Amino acid sequence: MSSSPKQISKEEETIISVPIEIHSVPLPPKKSTLRKLKLKLSEIFFPDDPLHKFKNKNLKTKFILGFQYFFPILQWLPNYGFNLFRSDLVAGLTIASLAIPQGISYAKLANLPPIIGLYSSFVPPIIYSVLGSSRHLGVGPVSIASLVMGAMLSEVISPTNQPNLYLKLAFTSTFFAGLFQASLGLFRLGFIIDFLSKATLIGFMAGAAIIVSLQQLKGLLGIVHFTNEMQIIPVMSSVFSHKNEWSWETIVMGISFLVFLLTARQISIKKPRLFWISAAAPLGSVILSTLLVFCLKSFGDKIPKIGQLPKGLNPPSIDMLYFQGSHIALTAKTGLVTGILSLTEGIAVGRTFASLENYQVDGNKEMIAIGAMNIVGSCSSCYVTTGAFSRSAVNYNAGAKTAFSNIIMSTAILITLLFLMPLFYYTPNVVLAAIIITAVVGLIDYEAMLRLWKVDKLDFVACLCSFFGVLFISVPTGLSLAVGISVFKVLLHITRPNIAILGNISGTQIFQNVERYENASRIPSFLIIGVEAPFYFANSTYLQERILRSIREEEERIESNKEPMLKCVILDMTAVTAIDTSGIDTLYELGKIIRKKSLQVALVNPVGSVIEKLHKSKVLDSISSSNGLYMSISEAILDISTLWKA
Amino acid sequence: MSSSPKQISKEEETIISVPIEIHSVPLPPKKSTLRKLKLKLSEIFFPDDPLHKFKNKNLKTKFILGFQYFFPILQWLPNYGFNLFRSDLVAGLTIASLAIPQGISYAKLANLPPIIGLYSSFVPPIIYSVLGSSRHLGVGPVSIASLVMGAMLSEVISPTNQPNLYLKLAFTSTFFAGLFQASLGLFRLGFIIDFLSKATLIGFMAGAAIIVSLQQLKGLLGIVHFTNEMQIIPVMSSVFSHKNEWSWETIVMGISFLVFLLTARQISIKKPRLFWISAAAPLGSVILSTLLVFCLKSFGDKIPKIGQLPKGLNPPSIDMLYFQGSHIALTAKTGLVTGILSLTEGIAVGRTFASLENYQVDGNKEMIAIGAMNIVGSCSSCYVTTGAFSRSAVNYNAGAKTAFSNIIMSTAILITLLFLMPLFYYTPNVVLAAIIITAVVGLIDYEAMLRLWKVDKLDFVACLCSFFGVLFISVPTGLSLAVGISVFKVLLHITRPNIAILGNISGTQIFQNVERYENASRIPSFLIIGVEAPFYFANSTYLQERILRSIREEEERIESNKEPMLKCVILDMTAVTAIDTSGIDTLYELGKIIRKKSLQVALVNPVGSVIEKLHKSKVLDSISSSNGLYMSISEAILDISTLWKA
Repeated sequence: MSSSPKQISKEEETIISVPIEIHSVPLPPKKSTLRKLKLKLSEIFFPDDPLHKFKNKNLKTKFILGFQYFFPILQWLPNYGFNLFRSDLVAGLTIASLAIPQGISYAKLANLPPIIGLYSSFVPPIIYSVLGSSRHLGVGPVSIASLVMGAMLSEVISPTNQPNLYLKLAFTSTFFAGLFQASLGLFRLGFIIDFLSKATLIGFMAGAAIIVSLQQLKGLLGIVHFTNEMQIIPVMSSVFSHKNEWSWETIVMGISFLVFLLTARQISIKKPRLFWISAAAPLGSVILSTLLVFCLKSFGDKIPKIGQLPKGLNPPSIDMLYFQGSHIALTAKTGLVTGILSLTEGIAVGRTFASLENYQVDGNKEMIAIGAMNIVGSCSSCYVTTGAFSRSAVNYNAGAKTAFSNIIMSTAILITLLFLMPLFYYTPNVVLAAIIITAVVGLIDYEAMLRLWKVDKLDFVACLCSFFGVLFISVPTGLSLAVGISVFKVLLHITRPNIAILGNISGTQIFQNVERYENASRIPSFLIIGVEAPFYFANSTYLQERILRSIREEEERIESNKEPMLKCVILDMTAVTAIDTSGIDTLYELGKIIRKKSLQVALVNPVGSVIEKLHKSKVLDSISSSNGLYMSISEAILDISTLWKA
Repeated sequence: MSSSPKQISKEEETIISVPIEIHSVPLPPKKSTLRKLKLKLSEIFFPDDPLHKFKNKNLKTKFILGFQYFFPILQWLPNYGFNLFRSDLVAGLTIASLAIPQGISYAKLANLPPIIGLYSSFVPPIIYSVLGSSRHLGVGPVSIASLVMGAMLSEVISPTNQPNLYLKLAFTSTFFAGLFQASLGLFRLGFIIDFLSKATLIGFMAGAAIIVSLQQLKGLLGIVHFTNEMQIIPVMSSVFSHKNEWSWETIVMGISFLVFLLTARQISIKKPRLFWISAAAPLGSVILSTLLVFCLKSFGDKIPKIGQLPKGLNPPSIDMLYFQGSHIALTAKTGLVTGILSLTEGIAVGRTFASLENYQVDGNKEMIAIGAMNIVGSCSSCYVTTGAFSRSAVNYNAGAKTAFSNIIMSTAILITLLFLMPLFYYTPNVVLAAIIITAVVGLIDYEAMLRLWKVDKLDFVACLCSFFGVLFISVPTGLSLAVGISVFKVLLHITRPNIAILGNISGTQIFQNVERYENASRIPSFLIIGVEAPFYFANSTYLQERILRSIREEEERIESNKEPMLKCVILDMTAVTAIDTSGIDTLYELGKIIRKKSLQVALVNPVGSVIEKLHKSKVLDSISSSNGLYMSISEAILDISTLWKA
């Protein structure tokens, strides 16, 4: 711990080729407990330092900035001009043509009346355009959240027998979803959604897509009596036990439109400039199929149709929120799950397009916006909405420049709701099934799965588990399984961390893993162990055993090679990013055991929080009686071997 | 990635004072997926390499070693001599004198007949002495596991109304506990008990000790009608609502013996050489109080006594194991919880004394031994036993040298069971209550709590939560809470890791945190960021935001100080011990965003598994078009600044 400069002898020069001064390892600057708590909390809740824009500004500017912070629309509306409007108009109309058939289809996916899907594409986009910070997010219902809501609610309440209660529960779930989303944002707990890792989401989405597609066999084959369950086995048995209900008219029509939609999608994937083909295809299919059924009456009679839809704007639904009775747990749970899922999609989509255009979206602010839009939505006959991937992609490709394209889309839906509803009377259900299948098939990302397998086997296992969990057990179980596996993966890494034997790269002061670097050579009489993990209760026993084993193996190696005897163990703590009280105790134990073997111990380069705790617990003194703490490995070796000679 | 040596110019010499050769960063040696899986699995399940003793031995030696591995008694019995026996005899008799009153008391704690406690001190110690690898463990029932078993079972079954069913369930729980413990050992999953961190255990033990002591007020005050609940509030209200049942004779006797026992304990703590005072005090109290009650008949009549105890050895109880019906879930759960708790105590105690005497106990083997002793115990009228802390401490202090002291203790218990049982007829219950209180009061370790507060605030919170969880909710809830908080702490560290701005320590090639090291100075035009955590789904968003914020702050600092413009961001990956696919994607995003700011990016010193994944995912090429990966920060700076000049 002395800091006097030392000249090295000839012998060390072969190891370290530069004169070295021994530096002491300082404690981090002293802070009070309260100050540390404040810093820690601000790291947890405000890592992005959201107030940095307000620094050094006068009161008026602060006020304006504050308003702009809470209502991002104020940032762009004052400078809004004709050029921007022209781009947004085209984009808005394009996503409206997608939103109408999607809205109707997704509402059916959630076992809700089709009109709810249109309502949900009218109010939420307006709210988002005021509060949201993404410029390209296309807002509306999404397949996954619709599917999950449908699955969870219809497990308890039948949508056909008790349609009114079911509707009430759907609105209440939407309210809870919004409340949950907005609170996550308000309390800056957005990191919770990070626990749905990409790997598990890929598996979850693929599983859900298959489940949804299979469910659509009902519409595609024209089956009337179909199971309400969501797992693959009851669905398949339901399909084949009702073969007598299969109707060839429906099947022909369904397959044709499915082929048409999938082809359109494939064209747009191949040539992104032709995005409008897949964007217009759903509306085209709806119009075409409606005309077909209308014109060929005798053919169309055998095909189930949407039927009468009520004209007019969203009716208020605040009196349908249902907080009494036994269903509150169900709605809260459904709200939580659909809320998390839709939030994950919304935030991910927002971030994707923001990074493409090089601007930032604030995750917590987005959560408040999405939450607010669901709370308002639940009071105006909408169900769960978020930033939808397909809609946003079309929006972006169609040249949207601001959130104004959402207002254009809302206006188009408004006109539809007011004047065009009778046109959907003859729209066949089968075409909606085809639209849903086309939408969800895109969620099966086998290339990403393949990449997981190549890059990270454990991520691949997590992905498979959530995939099969959704497919064979249930959607919420699959989701919990996925989160559980992700957390388990983190814990496994903590529980079984790497340790590496380090050697000197000749001609440098650098020490590297001898297994990886061929030119890294061990220093005689020293064993240098790099610990690559925080020292925690969960791994302290393991680390102790593993380090003792390394020492034993090194001694065996030395004996068989007849090398100079081992005299000192150096623990490189650079990658020990944290330590807790169990870790401290273990380090103390370890020091004691190593010293009993008549070996010296030295610690190198512990990070700030670790050195602070070691100091406070007074363990440092007992680990190595003196000169046991160094800033770098080379300094440790130089100092210790100088002492041996003295 | 070039590896040609380069001479540095005059200017760099001020930063790095040595000529440097640029090293390439190699991939780890190639291994097949299967080989990697094998290595990973052996790290997870065999970190201590248990077969290393068998290497390079002939078949016969291997065979003998194998037998010795499974029956550690074979390691010491062949060399057992008179000197060892003399030591073990003294120690064995000492712990027997403790075991008899403790056995009776702890059985009462578990709401079991007192005789079960003696049975449990007879069979399990014999099994352990054959299979166990600790030389100092004193085996028998322990307070925590007794308490938890009593609490969990009597929540469902009343021990007074259905004593026979209760007894059956207790044996079945013991069987499950043993099965669970042995499987943990067999499948080498011992690390699971590491998740009960020391901090949470301290809180849990203290809470449980208070609960147990309060429960003993029943015996101490002579109350007849007492609640079966375990929480602090019902217990206290039960105490004060039955004031009329308080009996002064019982109270006087209880308080006197309590004071006597606590004084004896205090003396032994102050002077460890007088350990035998506290070891003999319980038996002394039992004898004294029994004599008192026997002699002063009129006084003794008002004091509840143990009464008739059956003479004879453990009856077989295999036919009392109860696997049918509705109670299987209860017994399995009780077995699981008591199994984990007793395992934790047994392993911790074994390790403590092993490290005092500088030998190793194999955790997994210990689990098999403890598990086997509980399985056999459940078939011979014993309930859950393990290595008890108090008994082992007395054993060690009394000079035990091998597990033979357990056999001596068993023999003493055997004689008691066969001949001395009638002597306990007049033993008053109140003295057992005093013994229990004295035993558990020692579990309240407020010094350790204070140390937690000083060293690690979050560990202290975990400790408090488990303390209050046990006190106010329930024992299993308190325990789950404790585990949950421990896991949450790990996740919090992963979710919100540190990042540090690094600067060069002048005259060296070393880079350190500029906030901690005053002599660390930033390199002009470079921002060097040390990431101190694995790059995971749980923190990838945070790390991205945090790194971008650091760049923004650095740019602001540079602007206000009028320093040379920022041109390159170096990420020091030394402490990034792992990366997953989410992390890789984020790193890719981050590289893209930084490059859009017209800044260069370089990665320094990623560990083996990280570089491998980066390589496989082909992200490396896109993070930095060329020369973006270096072995050390100094090489990166030298190479990049040379390129700028070229």
